[in-house]
Amino acid sequence: MKYDVTVIGAGGGGYPGAFRLAKSGYNVLMADPKGELGGNCLYSGCVPSKTVREMAQLIWRTSRVLKQEIKVNFERIQAHKDFVQETRFKQHKRELSEYNSITFYKGVIKIKDPNHVIVKTEDKEIEAETRYIIIASGSEPFKPQFPGSEYCITSDDLYSYKTPLRKLPQDMVIIGGGYIAIETASIFNILGVKTHLLVRGDRVLRGFEDEIVNTLLPILKLDIIYNAPVLEIKKIKEDEFEVIYSSKDGAKKSIRTNLVLLATGRKPVLPEGIENTGIALDKRGYIVVDNAMRTNLPNVFATGDVNGKAPYFHAAVRMSIAAAYNIMANGSPIDYVDYKSIPVTIYSVPSASYVGIMPSEAKRMGIEIMEATYNMEDEVMAQMYDEREGMLKLIFEKGSLRLIGAWMVGVHSQYLINELGQAVLHGLTAKQLASFADQHPSTNEIIAYAARKVL
Amino acid sequence: MKYDVTVIGAGGGGYPGAFRLAKSGYNVLMADPKGELGGNCLYSGCVPSKTVREMAQLIWRTSRVLKQEIKVNFERIQAHKDFVQETRFKQHKRELSEYNSITFYKGVIKIKDPNHVIVKTEDKEIEAETRYIIIASGSEPFKPQFPGSEYCITSDDLYSYKTPLRKLPQDMVIIGGGYIAIETASIFNILGVKTHLLVRGDRVLRGFEDEIVNTLLPILKLDIIYNAPVLEIKKIKEDEFEVIYSSKDGAKKSIRTNLVLLATGRKPVLPEGIENTGIALDKRGYIVVDNAMRTNLPNVFATGDVNGKAPYFHAAVRMSIAAAYNIMANGSPIDYVDYKSIPVTIYSVPSASYVGIMPSEAKRMGIEIMEATYNMEDEVMAQMYDEREGMLKLIFEKGSLRLIGAWMVGVHSQYLINELGQAVLHGLTAKQLASFADQHPSTNEIIAYAARKVL
Amino acid sequence: MKYDVTVIGAGGGGYPGAFRLAKSGYNVLMADPKGELGGNCLYSGCVPSKTVREMAQLIWRTSRVLKQEIKVNFERIQAHKDFVQETRFKQHKRELSEYNSITFYKGVIKIKDPNHVIVKTEDKEIEAETRYIIIASGSEPFKPQFPGSEYCITSDDLYSYKTPLRKLPQDMVIIGGGYIAIETASIFNILGVKTHLLVRGDRVLRGFEDEIVNTLLPILKLDIIYNAPVLEIKKIKEDEFEVIYSSKDGAKKSIRTNLVLLATGRKPVLPEGIENTGIALDKRGYIVVDNAMRTNLPNVFATGDVNGKAPYFHAAVRMSIAAAYNIMANGSPIDYVDYKSIPVTIYSVPSASYVGIMPSEAKRMGIEIMEATYNMEDEVMAQMYDEREGMLKLIFEKGSLRLIGAWMVGVHSQYLINELGQAVLHGLTAKQLASFADQHPSTNEIIAYAARKVL
Amino acid sequence: MKYDVTVIGAGGGGYPGAFRLAKSGYNVLMADPKGELGGNCLYSGCVPSKTVREMAQLIWRTSRVLKQEIKVNFERIQAHKDFVQETRFKQHKRELSEYNSITFYKGVIKIKDPNHVIVKTEDKEIEAETRYIIIASGSEPFKPQFPGSEYCITSDDLYSYKTPLRKLPQDMVIIGGGYIAIETASIFNILGVKTHLLVRGDRVLRGFEDEIVNTLLPILKLDIIYNAPVLEIKKIKEDEFEVIYSSKDGAKKSIRTNLVLLATGRKPVLPEGIENTGIALDKRGYIVVDNAMRTNLPNVFATGDVNGKAPYFHAAVRMSIAAAYNIMANGSPIDYVDYKSIPVTIYSVPSASYVGIMPSEAKRMGIEIMEATYNMEDEVMAQMYDEREGMLKLIFEKGSLRLIGAWMVGVHSQYLINELGQAVLHGLTAKQLASFADQHPSTNEIIAYAARKVL
Repeated sequence: MKYDVTVIGAGGGGYPGAFRLAKSGYNVLMADPKGELGGNCLYSGCVPSKTVREMAQLIWRTSRVLKQEIKVNFERIQAHKDFVQETRFKQHKRELSEYNSITFYKGVIKIKDPNHVIVKTEDKEIEAETRYIIIASGSEPFKPQFPGSEYCITSDDLYSYKTPLRKLPQDMVIIGGGYIAIETASIFNILGVKTHLLVRGDRVLRGFEDEIVNTLLPILKLDIIYNAPVLEIKKIKEDEFEVIYSSKDGAKKSIRTNLVLLATGRKPVLPEGIENTGIALDKRGYIVVDNAMRTNLPNVFATGDVNGKAPYFHAAVRMSIAAAYNIMANGSPIDYVDYKSIPVTIYSVPSASYVGIMPSEAKRMGIEIMEATYNMEDEVMAQMYDEREGMLKLIFEKGSLRLIGAWMVGVHSQYLINELGQAVLHGLTAKQLASFADQHPSTNEIIAYAARKVL
Repeated sequence: MKYDVTVIGAGGGGYPGAFRLAKSGYNVLMADPKGELGGNCLYSGCVPSKTVREMAQLIWRTSRVLKQEIKVNFERIQAHKDFVQETRFKQHKRELSEYNSITFYKGVIKIKDPNHVIVKTEDKEIEAETRYIIIASGSEPFKPQFPGSEYCITSDDLYSYKTPLRKLPQDMVIIGGGYIAIETASIFNILGVKTHLLVRGDRVLRGFEDEIVNTLLPILKLDIIYNAPVLEIKKIKEDEFEVIYSSKDGAKKSIRTNLVLLATGRKPVLPEGIENTGIALDKRGYIVVDNAMRTNLPNVFATGDVNGKAPYFHAAVRMSIAAAYNIMANGSPIDYVDYKSIPVTIYSVPSASYVGIMPSEAKRMGIEIMEATYNMEDEVMAQMYDEREGMLKLIFEKGSLRLIGAWMVGVHSQYLINELGQAVLHGLTAKQLASFADQHPSTNEIIAYAARKVL
Repeated sequence: MKYDVTVIGAGGGGYPGAFRLAKSGYNVLMADPKGELGGNCLYSGCVPSKTVREMAQLIWRTSRVLKQEIKVNFERIQAHKDFVQETRFKQHKRELSEYNSITFYKGVIKIKDPNHVIVKTEDKEIEAETRYIIIASGSEPFKPQFPGSEYCITSDDLYSYKTPLRKLPQDMVIIGGGYIAIETASIFNILGVKTHLLVRGDRVLRGFEDEIVNTLLPILKLDIIYNAPVLEIKKIKEDEFEVIYSSKDGAKKSIRTNLVLLATGRKPVLPEGIENTGIALDKRGYIVVDNAMRTNLPNVFATGDVNGKAPYFHAAVRMSIAAAYNIMANGSPIDYVDYKSIPVTIYSVPSASYVGIMPSEAKRMGIEIMEATYNMEDEVMAQMYDEREGMLKLIFEKGSLRLIGAWMVGVHSQYLINELGQAVLHGLTAKQLASFADQHPSTNEIIAYAARKVL
Repeated sequence: MKYDVTVIGAGGGGYPGAFRLAKSGYNVLMADPKGELGGNCLYSGCVPSKTVREMAQLIWRTSRVLKQEIKVNFERIQAHKDFVQETRFKQHKRELSEYNSITFYKGVIKIKDPNHVIVKTEDKEIEAETRYIIIASGSEPFKPQFPGSEYCITSDDLYSYKTPLRKLPQDMVIIGGGYIAIETASIFNILGVKTHLLVRGDRVLRGFEDEIVNTLLPILKLDIIYNAPVLEIKKIKEDEFEVIYSSKDGAKKSIRTNLVLLATGRKPVLPEGIENTGIALDKRGYIVVDNAMRTNLPNVFATGDVNGKAPYFHAAVRMSIAAAYNIMANGSPIDYVDYKSIPVTIYSVPSASYVGIMPSEAKRMGIEIMEATYNMEDEVMAQMYDEREGMLKLIFEKGSLRLIGAWMVGVHSQYLINELGQAVLHGLTAKQLASFADQHPSTNEIIAYAARKVL
């Protein structure tokens, strides 16, 4: 078989580009071991976890504002999560069916050489010739090995489609301090689970601007134990574990808990055979790409988590489409991805989001800035929900007053960050933001309110 | 007393400009009969009604998705509404206290001549000299007179601060088909009230694009009786009325109900004394202004509902600030309001929003357009809430692909419309929208998804 | 032979797209009867005519400002014109040589069917298969037939490469009132030729906004005879003709002259065989295309003069590149041309330029506008050259203050119109224009000066 | 007398702001020792020098392209220069007369305290009270003292209105290597003067990007002697001087010449009395301001050369207007100047221009860039003038492809830099530049041509 393009993986880095290429008549070979489109994000990542989060928030909000006792029914929540996943699986199948020129397999793709691939399905191997390859094989949880680490679950066990985990533990230890750890702690706290974070170093959310972390953490009121590397996990009995860690002063300490979640980061999933192709990897093992999604091989592109540039579904989609356009132009790029204008959100309750250049980076670069803030205490939707914590910060370049970055902690940050991100990507200024009359009542109003402070 | 600026009314058209002027050291005289800042919007309009709406939506969502029976406690809802209003009254008092140069009275302001005003408070009259006047006296419900019209309430009775109305009627007739009528019916239906709309003509939501109305109405499933002018209302007993109307075929019909709401539009509130100033009114009685908020008198500006340009709180705020800037520049304008880029939302459940130029208007103007749509059925947050009805439409100018308008019916329309409105106001194109990676999961993603359809 | 793309014509609508496709590895077949790249524009149109224009302007300027007698040496001017043409022919050859995948013939291309073409060179016919076709066969002067019309020359005779016309006539009659007629009259007046325009109707420069024409004409001081259709031309002797026309009152009148130029518009050059393809033409005979340069056949595109959309070289280049991108995307467009944002210049001395929506069109569409003007009398470069006639007008949409159009008559209009056109295409506002500090001294300063008038 | 605003100096930093304030009804007191509006720029700087430059270029171009001997008549050139200056003096008088609320004096203004000033005219002293002060007192040539320095002229002597210098020297030594030195050498070379630059260090045009300098210098073919500090100037006889300088190896060398021009930079002109006000100066003696033109005193602003931010007339105009707006807002800024988006031009023949962030600065800041260039050899106007030297470089931010800077050496750089500067200030991208069809033929076309290289 001969294909124009082989797409390895059908997640956010894969299927959007495949669809775009098919729309322009390209023959596309695509395979994914899950047999479904949507990747980890849909199968076990952002979609199911945020469904649970929304349910948690609904419960929390309703019970707090309407003063109504809401019983947490985790089976119901997980069933709803499965329903959302199923809905999207079907939707993607329908979308896929609209493109005749895409051949999709449940299976993995091995790269034989840059123009030949082997699809390995459950029952056969199919060799195919291909003009281009998009590697979009994603990432997977990184699981450090230590005594008892086999007792740990990962977020996949919490959220994957039809996961057997349907009952809430009373107590949960989360190992790690990244955004998945924080989100999970925040969500399960609301659901009534007592959570504890064991963090190796002296801070959480590395890579996030200090002032975001310092705004968010006091609101979340998590039980975080810093400088606490885990030494061993002992199984006490069914659903009871002892997590032994080293405390700051060197002493061994332990926690008894019902569930241990490993949230210690992710690592790239490289396609089989890549080692023989000469495709360059960086020192962390990710595939090296430029802003046009090109690897060092002229006909091979890499999109999504596998290149480590911006490991988020929406970033992957954007990259996937850029790869599609650049394949149309035969690797002489016509589309480039601006990684720094891609928004990032921590889906805790409340959420925290940012986009663009943060104050500390601006300082490092020598960009002089003006800042404008707005307190969520005064924001109308936050008042309606009585969730009045958090803050918005706008970061303008001095002189031009161009919005170069923004962050927000609080209600609806995941929605506002889009209006802000559009502004950052397209170079809008404080004057432009201030001249727009955001809908009242909506949280977005605080964007113009903040912008007006410098004018 | 001598003031730089007199601001008549402390609503959205009033206080933001007063604050901005005070920030630049202007002495401002401001009065409002409510004695509070925020105008009708806060006292009896958008803030309390949307608080009730949010509570209704919470109840609806929680009960539907989590399959939990939620008891509707209207007293609790109204108490929460009062709390939100109080919170904002206090907030505005705090903000006001930050500006020494604003003198605020509970009372009305009579215009003696363009440079002299009289503040009438409960117990005294104060005459003052003023260099500029901003008329921001707002609007009030228009109440047609007919037999029994005295039994009707208006939305003010539903929502005003500390309103005695604390119990839900079983059945409610709403007279009118404007957005307030539609919103109220939608919200109170959810709260368990059986609502009926009596509409004089053969359509509701006049002024809204047909395709928005035609998308929204089937979702709302309201009981709308068209071509049904009300003839008389009879009081049967306490909390029971008979509403008699003329049906399409001319026959008299009637409905028994517990509450009758008049939602038949609004009319401007003109300040006393205006008739002697020569300030020009249009034929509907609104004050004539240009895009710089100037009336025909050089030192008098009119902002907010009183000029009838865009009777929304956020529009009023924008106008108020424009007036402030243009007063600083002594009426030689430095700021102009683009009325057509101000978003409008019907806060039904789900909501409907639009901004910019609608297809029918584009056609009328001779602007060739390309349209791109996205179905809410496929939107991820709608799926999480299982509220999958509605649609997004983007309207691009052909050739330039500039976004000239957009409308949306469905979950979060009131948030998305801001990202869309920024794009419309600042001339962003389909290419620009498509190149932004909206946060996943968030409803805003469908903006880029739709934009990509034309690329 | 099999090609990816066949490009019919190597002018502005042809070679830029061919180059772009070749850059992405497409095999391109291209032919042009001139055997050179650049089309009519370079061979006999804008490049040579504007070279003569620049020389005329140099002479005029130097003699006026420096008060130095400059002898007009037309042979030298024509030799320089040939040199410029040669220089560009060579340049295009060099550029062509950088793309191995383009096969270029001197000859014409006949369309056999949408996937087969025949190249007809001087000595052979080559049949080729092709996936796509770009028709960029251009236009040619339209020559009405009347007694003696065979004595007329066209602008091709004035300007084509190595034209034998090397001597200036003393007197020249120009038949027509389009921009070529006006330019030629203006230029040859400066060179010392006495010119007369015979115009059929009661105005010149149809299609140009009245106020542009009314600003330009008094400056040019041309001898224009309106309502003067030509009846006959008689040859009196070598280099002397009698041009007989009907005057307004119906009487026959005549002019004796040494040269008669027909400047009565242009018509499309359609490729041979097009009649059998089903490609749709409009009623004027131009190929129908959309903003993506697509004809009604999915694999055939038409760019440049042959589609009659915007018969200018720079428009053709833009269209050619759009066609190339859209071919890459297999006719599922990724690039669209905004015809109304393409600048147009009349290269008289002084020149006149416009871009975007003119006041009369705005009125027709119902767009409310604000205008800002600047008089060339006060412009610094105009003062340095002592050519202080003309004016700039900026046309802003009310409210948004977006620049929707601009026109200028005077020194450097052909340069300014680009800064203005960028602003129109990308939706910049008066505030944005006003906040830029255009280089001093440069004519562009008046853009900001004018914009500041509304702020 | 009481004034709203006192403007010290009527140059580019002064009168535009005065006019804007007067337009809004402010009472303005303004004085300038020249008694004319326009400052040094008009009196002895950019306007007259560029008039001479344009004349030189006309002569050069006409003689080269038309092969006509043009006699250089410097008296005529200087007379024309005076005429241009006079024309503008009158124009400014006319403009001034349109504002009743400006009181203008020939004289200097002494600051008594931040609210009191003394106007010193030829025959009297007037004390006035003022709410605000704009210091726009400009700069003057810095004249180092050394034996014989009294024999040197400065550019003021060359260009000031009615200067007695009306004859060209045969030979001229220019001391200095800044842009005034380079411009003067280039212009006077064309006029037939043999010029020599004596430069203290090992490079000229400090502060300009190396690659601009390295592109420009080989074209200008100036006689530059590096590492040559001047030790002494001896007058040999009328119009003959010996300039003694130290050569690189330490030996004394000398040049005989007819005129010695000191072009060793400029220094601020501070208003009398400033030392008692507490207005902060930087270590070079310039007044410290922020992007809103505010000094450390709340009611005092400083614009133009006197703050050393961007010592160019067009920058001064922009600053002056920003100061006016910010005074209207009582020092609570509503307008900010983006210094880095102000274009800079060296008006040599050919000229060189740049705007925004240069590659070396981008590197220093850690901004990754993509560059695109276009050679003037292939530019059509350069070919028409046969002045085909130079180059355009566009500097894009990677990813976003936003134009962050641009430079150009060659024909019309002073006009192109405006289209480029607008793009830099307003954040336009390569895609946006590439989608505009710049007018053909015009030099601006190369902007889109270059931008298309990355797409």
